[in-house]
Amino acid sequence: MSRPVGIRDVAHEAGVSVTTVSHVLNETPNTRVSPETRQRVRDAAHRLDYRPNRLAQGLRTRSSGMIGLLTEEIATTPHAGRIILGAQETASKHNLTLAIINSHLSADATSRTDDVRALLDRHVDGIIYATVYHHEVSPPAELDAVPAVLIGARDRRGFLPAVMPDEERGASDVVRLLVDVGHRRIGFASNSEDVPATRGRLRGYLSALALSGIDVDDRLIVSAESEAAGGYLAARALLSISPPPTAIFCYNDRMAMGVYRAAYELGLRIPNDISVVGFDDQDPIAGSLYPQLTTVALPHYEMGAWAVDALKARMDSADSPEEEVLLRCPVVVRASISPPNPQERYGGTGVSTSPRDP
Amino acid sequence: MSRPVGIRDVAHEAGVSVTTVSHVLNETPNTRVSPETRQRVRDAAHRLDYRPNRLAQGLRTRSSGMIGLLTEEIATTPHAGRIILGAQETASKHNLTLAIINSHLSADATSRTDDVRALLDRHVDGIIYATVYHHEVSPPAELDAVPAVLIGARDRRGFLPAVMPDEERGASDVVRLLVDVGHRRIGFASNSEDVPATRGRLRGYLSALALSGIDVDDRLIVSAESEAAGGYLAARALLSISPPPTAIFCYNDRMAMGVYRAAYELGLRIPNDISVVGFDDQDPIAGSLYPQLTTVALPHYEMGAWAVDALKARMDSADSPEEEVLLRCPVVVRASISPPNPQERYGGTGVSTSPRDP
Repeated sequence: MSRPVGIRDVAHEAGVSVTTVSHVLNETPNTRVSPETRQRVRDAAHRLDYRPNRLAQGLRTRSSGMIGLLTEEIATTPHAGRIILGAQETASKHNLTLAIINSHLSADATSRTDDVRALLDRHVDGIIYATVYHHEVSPPAELDAVPAVLIGARDRRGFLPAVMPDEERGASDVVRLLVDVGHRRIGFASNSEDVPATRGRLRGYLSALALSGIDVDDRLIVSAESEAAGGYLAARALLSISPPPTAIFCYNDRMAMGVYRAAYELGLRIPNDISVVGFDDQDPIAGSLYPQLTTVALPHYEMGAWAVDALKARMDSADSPEEEVLLRCPVVVRASISPPNPQERYGGTGVSTSPRDP
Repeated sequence: MSRPVGIRDVAHEAGVSVTTVSHVLNETPNTRVSPETRQRVRDAAHRLDYRPNRLAQGLRTRSSGMIGLLTEEIATTPHAGRIILGAQETASKHNLTLAIINSHLSADATSRTDDVRALLDRHVDGIIYATVYHHEVSPPAELDAVPAVLIGARDRRGFLPAVMPDEERGASDVVRLLVDVGHRRIGFASNSEDVPATRGRLRGYLSALALSGIDVDDRLIVSAESEAAGGYLAARALLSISPPPTAIFCYNDRMAMGVYRAAYELGLRIPNDISVVGFDDQDPIAGSLYPQLTTVALPHYEMGAWAVDALKARMDSADSPEEEVLLRCPVVVRASISPPNPQERYGGTGVSTSPRDP
């Protein structure tokens, strides 16, 4: 390990004082340094490959150039990597470094406070607080010490900017896609757990039916565990209704896996006999199912990027707006939708005995 | 935002000089401060909730208390979150903060160098360099400026400690599990791409057969794209061999998804008619398939934790060993294995017409 090049080396190389080098490289306003000298200093710094000491810069400017991302349960969130990636790449654009701390969902308020303090001890210039399973959060009071932005939930007090996925719009869009190809009896395999996504996706399902002039049939809304096994049970229940749905909107792609299995067992081909759509665009399910699943993508990368941009705006100006933003969840069209088959009429068992189209 | 409590406030509260506070709180060696005064200073700091300025500490101690995690393609690695979590929780134990930078696989050597420099500019005390698709790497020369540790690949020059999953042992263990319940004809649905995991898992398959005294049948090793579609094609090929395999070891859980589909189509029940095992324990596939898939877990959390511990050891002592460690990949037993059915003999089409056991 060689000694790093210091500001004194640059001053020596350029034949100027340390103060002059500091003024030039830090672009200190109102200093009288000729353009020629400025160029000589920059050339010397470049030749010597001088890297300014950002710790010292931090003490002088009272900013560390570092922002903290406090995530809840990163390990159990399949898309957390995309949030981090969006935040990290956007931080790089602003010449900011991203420090990460993971909080456990089970953690009590005290340990969350400790996590925020650990970041504040590093003199982070701002903090992003990301959660997935909450509609609203009461951020630890320590978060008010620096600019802060929320991902995935709104501030119960309404102080902090927040970015969330537009679950309702995403659900409405994919259900309307089913309506557009001719479906009128659309089942919803919903999540039995009351999380924000459950409510948002149900609202989207209901609003799509309302906009399409389709009456809601309560029997077509079935809730189960939001895993493949729950999707299987929900599909068996939905397909035993008479008349059965011609399409099933699944709360998520995991449940869609179970719906596929139920369809296989009942001898129903997807999409010929039954159309299926999911939500989450979860890798690798949606692209690995056969046929590939039409679903709705969550804007995780975009939420990470938005949060860093919003945080930077707050760091630069206390007057930046305290907004709440819903980001679009785009429909990803694959191969699991087709128009309902008017010739096909299968009975209460959900099993068809009629010959199939090729 | 209130003014933070400073060292002067503590000195005033304790009725001592700033220098004394500094000596006490930083535990400066060889200073004469009475135990009573030390206690008074600590009490004052505690009462005022004083948080030392870690930027200033960093300048004095020439350490930032921050380590950098440079990851390649975090977004495309489903388990990257587990590596980050293991690294972050272990960093917390050592009172270190984890800063993250993502490098793109496609990035050229120059931009990887820039990523390392961005971390060095922050005066990180050490760097962890994590990759997934390489057997060996030539780390950027800048990495030698601080202690460094590799995850997922070894240093081509043999300088840096490295931690990798023991692919061979994991594959051997799960194939021997098949042998233990009675399978002798075991197909391998391998990956057509030559990555370290492909070679390691093939070695494990071959060594398990050798240890069990089973001759290798080259026809039972089929390579395809390491996705569900490739697994489907590999299974169709394997199950058309006469006599067909009674069990299939899949390169990964994605390919196992396709093997399940092929078995469904051919009317083969898993595990009664054919046993299937995977590798990766990829959430949510392995637990969502029906029946749930027996597979091999990758020790991502443990690799992240090991890397931070090894880095801390190198930061504390230049004499720490430059080791390469293979971490165990444990078999996760679920429901996709049963003994081969001696009554069952299905032909070259892979389709059985004989009645099935319950």
